Amino acid sequence: MTPLRIYVDFVPPPQAMALLREAAAGHELLFARNPTASVLAKAERDPQIDTADIAFGQPDTGAVLGSPRLRWVHVSSSGITRYDTPEVLQELRARGVLLSNSASVYAEACALQSLAFLLAQSRVLPRALASRTPNGSPEWNDLRRSCVPPRGQRILIVGFGAIARRLAEFLRPLGPEIVAHRRHPRCDEGIPVVGPEGLADALAWADHVVDILPESGETRGFFGAERFAMMKRGVVFQNIGRGATVDQDALLAALRSGHVAAAWLDVTSPEPLPDGHPLLSEPNCHITPHIAGGHADESVTLVRHFAENLARFVAGNPLSDRVA
Amino acid sequence: MTPLRIYVDFVPPPQAMALLREAAAGHELLFARNPTASVLAKAERDPQIDTADIAFGQPDTGAVLGSPRLRWVHVSSSGITRYDTPEVLQELRARGVLLSNSASVYAEACALQSLAFLLAQSRVLPRALASRTPNGSPEWNDLRRSCVPPRGQRILIVGFGAIARRLAEFLRPLGPEIVAHRRHPRCDEGIPVVGPEGLADALAWADHVVDILPESGETRGFFGAERFAMMKRGVVFQNIGRGATVDQDALLAALRSGHVAAAWLDVTSPEPLPDGHPLLSEPNCHITPHIAGGHADESVTLVRHFAENLARFVAGNPLSDRVA
Repeated sequence: MTPLRIYVDFVPPPQAMALLREAAAGHELLFARNPTASVLAKAERDPQIDTADIAFGQPDTGAVLGSPRLRWVHVSSSGITRYDTPEVLQELRARGVLLSNSASVYAEACALQSLAFLLAQSRVLPRALASRTPNGSPEWNDLRRSCVPPRGQRILIVGFGAIARRLAEFLRPLGPEIVAHRRHPRCDEGIPVVGPEGLADALAWADHVVDILPESGETRGFFGAERFAMMKRGVVFQNIGRGATVDQDALLAALRSGHVAAAWLDVTSPEPLPDGHPLLSEPNCHITPHIAGGHADESVTLVRHFAENLARFVAGNPLSDRVA
Repeated sequence: MTPLRIYVDFVPPPQAMALLREAAAGHELLFARNPTASVLAKAERDPQIDTADIAFGQPDTGAVLGSPRLRWVHVSSSGITRYDTPEVLQELRARGVLLSNSASVYAEACALQSLAFLLAQSRVLPRALASRTPNGSPEWNDLRRSCVPPRGQRILIVGFGAIARRLAEFLRPLGPEIVAHRRHPRCDEGIPVVGPEGLADALAWADHVVDILPESGETRGFFGAERFAMMKRGVVFQNIGRGATVDQDALLAALRSGHVAAAWLDVTSPEPLPDGHPLLSEPNCHITPHIAGGHADESVTLVRHFAENLARFVAGNPLSDRVA
């Protein structure tokens, strides 16, 4: 077996590093000179990538396309925004460079974040955790009345992939009706799925809209004034996909008019929102700082997933989470 | 059919009232002169109960035992604290008075509250909703690292009944190990159950302890210093049962020492906690004001459940949620 040169643009913590070294035994690991701080940050240009067969992390598309040896890029996030343009994807294909992402690593945590948002809304946790109202008071009756169980509620998941599949599994025993939207329904999704022609009806039908869209030219500003207006009054909207898929001015207007009853956002544009941004003080807008995919031992899960894919790559087997 | 006299000590809102009148057609409804403000409040003594065959609400035990005609008491809560003494239960039995509660009405909402607590903890929502830390910061990495998925976690449910059964259904796809504790395991619970002799081991085993105990002479102060000490360091404790089942001083000490990593309490003693109570300012103690059973259309669900039981009573069939 020819040793492979594996370029890694971040520094895994000790346990994950040990796993990586073990998985890469017999190969050569090239660590970036200026490693990235997070799985979402774009790495600086590093000439070492030009000598690599494999890149693992968030390498720059220019560096990837400029590297003469590179045969496989394994992105350390679920999103592949930088690569998700027709030009880059075509160029990768033309050069025979495989592209895979880490969707499996984050799917469970992302689905849990979405479920946590749905349940925090269902049990009105933000209001309830801030209240000490006595039993029987009007506020107490209102709090209890505001708790809407998921059973029988209608949930539309926009963007079907590993996260939506897991979320649907988690939601099943809670008894909601679930429909997903994806560009090209395959009918193997396990739940009813509508394509673009069914989206307007699905938006009008839903009590909850869950945005799990990746960011691309097609999805930027996907949820704008027009699509919010298609939703029913009182809808709850959440975004665990990418901030740029939402027109935040339109969301703000919909929250202020009460058309959207509440929003739960793990992602915004930019991140974090600047001081004084009106969404920060909107009472029914709840924002977490892009932690949906995060979980204990995340870097171990991330490296284990790469290691499994490395074994597949070496054996010439199909990669898991291959996207191009 | 002899018309029955049904004493009701609260005033259902219009839709529920219409349902009650429909269900009681052919019988006589006696409404309390001083109706209670909530399903948890104790009603005042009302001589009308002496002429009733059935009481629905929260009638005083003295009034119930003093009423010469009463044959059935349907309590409007899940808890039956006031009736749950050997003396009262024996006296009811001796007089042939049936006792049922509204456990079915609140089980789903209570299980959802518990699940919401577990997920809010799993996704560190209180900290995450208050943070605007940028991607890649130490705080951001810590937030993501602090998210512990339920998969593989060990959950001990203390107090097995309709709520625990539903909660276990909800949790199954999330992949935790679940064990319940009840005084007298029946082995029809659908999950592993330990009796009193297995409780110490189960407390030491659990990552999460869910208290769903009712209040009675046997359960008051159930979770005290000794039982908290049996739990593993870093355990998460939640209480959606009754506040009196927890020794709050012991809980406070366990939170302060870090032995209990976080507490989620829907119930306290008293309710609400008074100004300045130390649990209110404990950073990892999250308190909601006894809303776990609450849900939209609660009074309709409550009256429908009573109406179904009334039909059973009239037909001589076994009551649902009969407790004595």
